[in-house]
Amino acid sequence: MKLKSIPTFEDIQLIHKRIKPFINKTPVLTSSSLDHISGANLFFKCENFQKIGAFKMRGASNALLALSQKERDQGVATHSSGNHAQAVALSARNHQTKSYIVMPENAPAIKRAATAGYGAEIITCAPTLEARESTLQAVVEKTGATFIHPYNNYDVIGGQATCAKELLEEVGQLDVVMAPIGGGGLMSGTALSTRHLSPNTRIIGSEPKWADDAYRSFKSGTMQYNTRVDTIADGLRTNLGVYTFEIITKMVDDIITVSEEEIVAAMRLIWERMKIIIEPSCAVPFAALLQQKDRFSGKKVGIILTGGNVDVENLPF
Amino acid sequence: MKLKSIPTFEDIQLIHKRIKPFINKTPVLTSSSLDHISGANLFFKCENFQKIGAFKMRGASNALLALSQKERDQGVATHSSGNHAQAVALSARNHQTKSYIVMPENAPAIKRAATAGYGAEIITCAPTLEARESTLQAVVEKTGATFIHPYNNYDVIGGQATCAKELLEEVGQLDVVMAPIGGGGLMSGTALSTRHLSPNTRIIGSEPKWADDAYRSFKSGTMQYNTRVDTIADGLRTNLGVYTFEIITKMVDDIITVSEEEIVAAMRLIWERMKIIIEPSCAVPFAALLQQKDRFSGKKVGIILTGGNVDVENLPF
Repeated sequence: MKLKSIPTFEDIQLIHKRIKPFINKTPVLTSSSLDHISGANLFFKCENFQKIGAFKMRGASNALLALSQKERDQGVATHSSGNHAQAVALSARNHQTKSYIVMPENAPAIKRAATAGYGAEIITCAPTLEARESTLQAVVEKTGATFIHPYNNYDVIGGQATCAKELLEEVGQLDVVMAPIGGGGLMSGTALSTRHLSPNTRIIGSEPKWADDAYRSFKSGTMQYNTRVDTIADGLRTNLGVYTFEIITKMVDDIITVSEEEIVAAMRLIWERMKIIIEPSCAVPFAALLQQKDRFSGKKVGIILTGGNVDVENLPF
Repeated sequence: MKLKSIPTFEDIQLIHKRIKPFINKTPVLTSSSLDHISGANLFFKCENFQKIGAFKMRGASNALLALSQKERDQGVATHSSGNHAQAVALSARNHQTKSYIVMPENAPAIKRAATAGYGAEIITCAPTLEARESTLQAVVEKTGATFIHPYNNYDVIGGQATCAKELLEEVGQLDVVMAPIGGGGLMSGTALSTRHLSPNTRIIGSEPKWADDAYRSFKSGTMQYNTRVDTIADGLRTNLGVYTFEIITKMVDDIITVSEEEIVAAMRLIWERMKIIIEPSCAVPFAALLQQKDRFSGKKVGIILTGGNVDVENLPF
């Protein structure tokens, strides 16, 4: 049964139970070194250790499980060149069904190969949003596959909500929870679980200054769009959807934006001090915290590290 | 009380208890992706998440605790440009005493800075073994500090043994346990704990072909020495000591050597699939396992990942 409205906490509990066989319960790591540097008491939820290397596996797993058997048998489709593509492809394979992934012709070969490696059929299109959407539409019409939107989908949002649920169930009440905002699926799910499990927690989003649509939408109360797509935090270049806009403007307490330099510096600190590989997008909330140290000093802060899919031959340091 | 002979398991239990406040209980990670690639069932003991980023903290912590109060008050000394230097420096600081670290003048600035950052006094010498030893001797004579040898020291070996102890206590009996061999302190400690806790486990060492002194010593029954010091696995360039030679020739079942290319390929696989940062030295046992897949197929294998101190600006890929 596909969700028709914002997931309740009861929905999220059911979702968590049913996706468990398909996801990792990721570890929460701490670092005395980064606590010392930041002045806060940090709990990093490590979705870089999730299946396919990112939190997207949670939402995609749930979206597949929300389909009827008949729908599932006809396959699933999406357009993405990133982690959502791999998550949909692996989830489809987990259910012995087909996935059709529309990718722009300039997508990196390594991402095509990874997605194809999970058994997806890759359909190439011109590198424009219009081409993506019309190609996807044609695939759906031809195959009968169900389109799994990467974030503007309540089943996907409900799946992403299980990440903060695990974090809070493991570490208890937090003063602050932080996540980055791309399309807003993770941020929305994080807000939904946190409001229920730890009502006094401040829920703080973060974005690159170069992709600050959510910040401007949040401040103005109307949907705003990104004007450039070149932030190093490649997972955060997308705009909010109408569902995620609604949840974020209602439930998030604040959004902080950070510069490219702040993102790279925070990423490097996490690599060097925590010895874990994270994507640039992951470093955005920690960069936001470092930018406003006084605000978080002495606080118990949960930070969601979204993924670890990065090209080790092409690092920003 | 300093140990005068090979640590018993009772010694190791006492050591583990007393070093606990000064070390991390590091996580054991698994990877379905690397299980699939290798055909084995792998348990990675992640000492890259240890204090100072490497297992050396275990042995150094214990060496400090083994000193009398009077000895401790006079400080400790060692010669090293690597992880042991940082471990001794931090352990000394933990006990409010001084550390004197002799480093060759060509040691990387970043390693000097890290060691000095833990409060050590760095003494520079010419980049030869003779200069290191005579400089250290002079420091010890002048200050009264106790020399903490990086591996040819039963207190250090007993400390390193707590790593395999934690691994086996967490995951139970293993078919195989693997560790790399540099000076042999970790391998010796691993063998001591494993023989006691999991007597049927095959204990397998691994070395770069370019630093195969332990392999040749093991095969010939007499101590052999490295003839080159340029393997990328910089933690493994040292020769065995007499204590570690004795333990390894008695207790290790086999030693496998690997090429530089095999080390880099295994390191990259761990980075990309497990999303963790490991030093080249860490990749050596996994490279050995991949070289001889058939031998380990279907087996439950523990692999000790020794550390994660690597210069992210200077990677081999």
